Amino acid sequence: MTERIYLDNSATTPVAPSVLEAMQPYFDILYGNASSFHEDGRRARKAIDESRAIVAEALGADPGEIVFTSGATESNNLALVGSFLSDDAKRHVVVSSIEHDAVLHTAQWLTKRGIELTVVETDEFGRVDPQAIRDALRDDTLLVSIMAGNNEIGTIQPIDRIAEICREAGVRFHTDAVQAFGKIDLDLMNVDLLSLSAHKFHGPKGVGVLYVRDGVRLVPLQHGGGHERNRRSGTENVPGIVGLGAAASLARSEHAVVSQRMSAMRQQLIDGVATLPGTRLNGHPTESLPHIANFSFEAIEGEGLVMKLDEYGVSASTGSACSSPNLEASHVLLAIGVPISMAHGSLRVSMGRQTTPDEINRFLEILPRAVEDLRAFSPFKVGE
Amino acid sequence: MTERIYLDNSATTPVAPSVLEAMQPYFDILYGNASSFHEDGRRARKAIDESRAIVAEALGADPGEIVFTSGATESNNLALVGSFLSDDAKRHVVVSSIEHDAVLHTAQWLTKRGIELTVVETDEFGRVDPQAIRDALRDDTLLVSIMAGNNEIGTIQPIDRIAEICREAGVRFHTDAVQAFGKIDLDLMNVDLLSLSAHKFHGPKGVGVLYVRDGVRLVPLQHGGGHERNRRSGTENVPGIVGLGAAASLARSEHAVVSQRMSAMRQQLIDGVATLPGTRLNGHPTESLPHIANFSFEAIEGEGLVMKLDEYGVSASTGSACSSPNLEASHVLLAIGVPISMAHGSLRVSMGRQTTPDEINRFLEILPRAVEDLRAFSPFKVGE
Repeated sequence: MTERIYLDNSATTPVAPSVLEAMQPYFDILYGNASSFHEDGRRARKAIDESRAIVAEALGADPGEIVFTSGATESNNLALVGSFLSDDAKRHVVVSSIEHDAVLHTAQWLTKRGIELTVVETDEFGRVDPQAIRDALRDDTLLVSIMAGNNEIGTIQPIDRIAEICREAGVRFHTDAVQAFGKIDLDLMNVDLLSLSAHKFHGPKGVGVLYVRDGVRLVPLQHGGGHERNRRSGTENVPGIVGLGAAASLARSEHAVVSQRMSAMRQQLIDGVATLPGTRLNGHPTESLPHIANFSFEAIEGEGLVMKLDEYGVSASTGSACSSPNLEASHVLLAIGVPISMAHGSLRVSMGRQTTPDEINRFLEILPRAVEDLRAFSPFKVGE
Repeated sequence: MTERIYLDNSATTPVAPSVLEAMQPYFDILYGNASSFHEDGRRARKAIDESRAIVAEALGADPGEIVFTSGATESNNLALVGSFLSDDAKRHVVVSSIEHDAVLHTAQWLTKRGIELTVVETDEFGRVDPQAIRDALRDDTLLVSIMAGNNEIGTIQPIDRIAEICREAGVRFHTDAVQAFGKIDLDLMNVDLLSLSAHKFHGPKGVGVLYVRDGVRLVPLQHGGGHERNRRSGTENVPGIVGLGAAASLARSEHAVVSQRMSAMRQQLIDGVATLPGTRLNGHPTESLPHIANFSFEAIEGEGLVMKLDEYGVSASTGSACSSPNLEASHVLLAIGVPISMAHGSLRVSMGRQTTPDEINRFLEILPRAVEDLRAFSPFKVGE
């Protein structure tokens, strides 16, 4: 039996061997509670401190600016809701139309609690125009949240420029950097809040980071023992935090090499898919994260394609894993103007550090067969 | 070198070997995102479903009533704040004076947002009188939250009776069962919400449960992809959830034997400490969780005792690990009327499934030496 080909690394990645090795002792040997006053507690605290220092260094931040959370959804909620609760006067939030659900749904929920929301549109490649952000700002703008790189189409946003505009206007700026971290350079110069998720860069599930610039006040969403300097109560997930640190360290050390390899494989994918009739690339051809390529196929359903590829031993997705079960067309693809029929026929291919050019070759052999299988039974014809 | 003696299992427990083994493949082999539509996703989903079924069975609940969270602090916050957000009319909450900080601080925070809080006192053993709960109820009472067993002194509450009173009054009842689960039988008959934390019963850190009775409406605290049937968004922590399930299964299968063994060791501890001058047992002598014993020592500081024991190779605590860093006397001990000097001289000894009678014997040899060392330098005298 041939090995399956896993091309859904934007949904989640395997924990890297060195990361798992680093975490291992913290389950059953160095298992102390980091808040305890004894040797077992101190060793756990030390492990957390080391992980915090690694993450801080990787981001160019101070360790005190790193808050460990249970993942990016919590980080994004803490950034938005924590900001909302910290300031009763400012009642306006700005996001883009292609944010992840953890930002978009949270922002939409806040509208029930008094927030006015401006959703800034993007161009056909999914790029946000910094000028559009500037135009959206008001005197009572609490926060702007624009993701660093899109999770479905890979498009990179000009967040340096957007962050600068927000800074000049005295508006808090948050970026969801879940897909971007370890793939492109991130400059925190004017960023106030930034979200990471370990399992997107070969760390474990269930742990993330919210970078909180020194001086940025957030009301916590979890009250209790006052952990994480009163910003996030709850017993620290020591093995998870150690794993996140090890994964951040790994991402940092191999970033340049891995990103270059991924960029080449992404081009290989784009070139390969372009030879098939009735296809298009969604997102920006070049201003993109290196590990994500999103395509649409005429006359087929994305879910059908994912299932057919699954039969052939390939794991891919139509878009965000979070939204998979609802079978709606991707809000991201609709937002960038992909026609609804093509938005329904989308496929996201996403790579990890373990992905090889040979796997991409095998995928490019399998893909036409899967597409043909489905089109043979489609009531629609390509080119109609 | 002698092995250290770990007697701080109420702070956290080592992950049991069988639990770690069950989790292991989900990091790097079965690493799929449970929301993905392919084989890797389905295997992750299946693992979560199995874990949910185990936890439901252990609690006598339906699988649909089990919400996986990042731990008990999140569960407690979701129970209280989620209830608060779900009902704009009811603005009264009842808790006991000896709740965990994750309940007490959350309830106190809600008072800034319009909640009136009634804090019910306990007797000298830390027992809540069900009649006091009945007396505290009002027409606008949203929720009563009383823990099943106390984390510092071990006292068990009459939650069956309290839950019945709440049910009769049509008031939502939540219990923090973090320390009680796996140690005593829990009857969910009249319970609406119940919190668990995996790492307190030999599962991993970073994962917990909120049992939510069918029909009990909660507004989620994390918005996003709509995971956990829209009750808790965020990519499921698959290895953590698998570990929680395995730990719940283990707790259930060995509950009777382990609890009996712990009860015997607890008595061994109580008898041993009673032979030392100037000591007292805090909490209820018999209506107690089997794994916790809390003592006060005249003329010494609890922190000093913990550090001295640490030097002698014993890990114990003054009380809740969460509150350790602040050096204040335990709010639980003060609430049950322990004089402040004795409250400052407290020691919590807590056992796990790995604790042996031999370790308790060795501890009882070390303890008098540690106490004498400290009293030799104390400005106070025993019996003054």
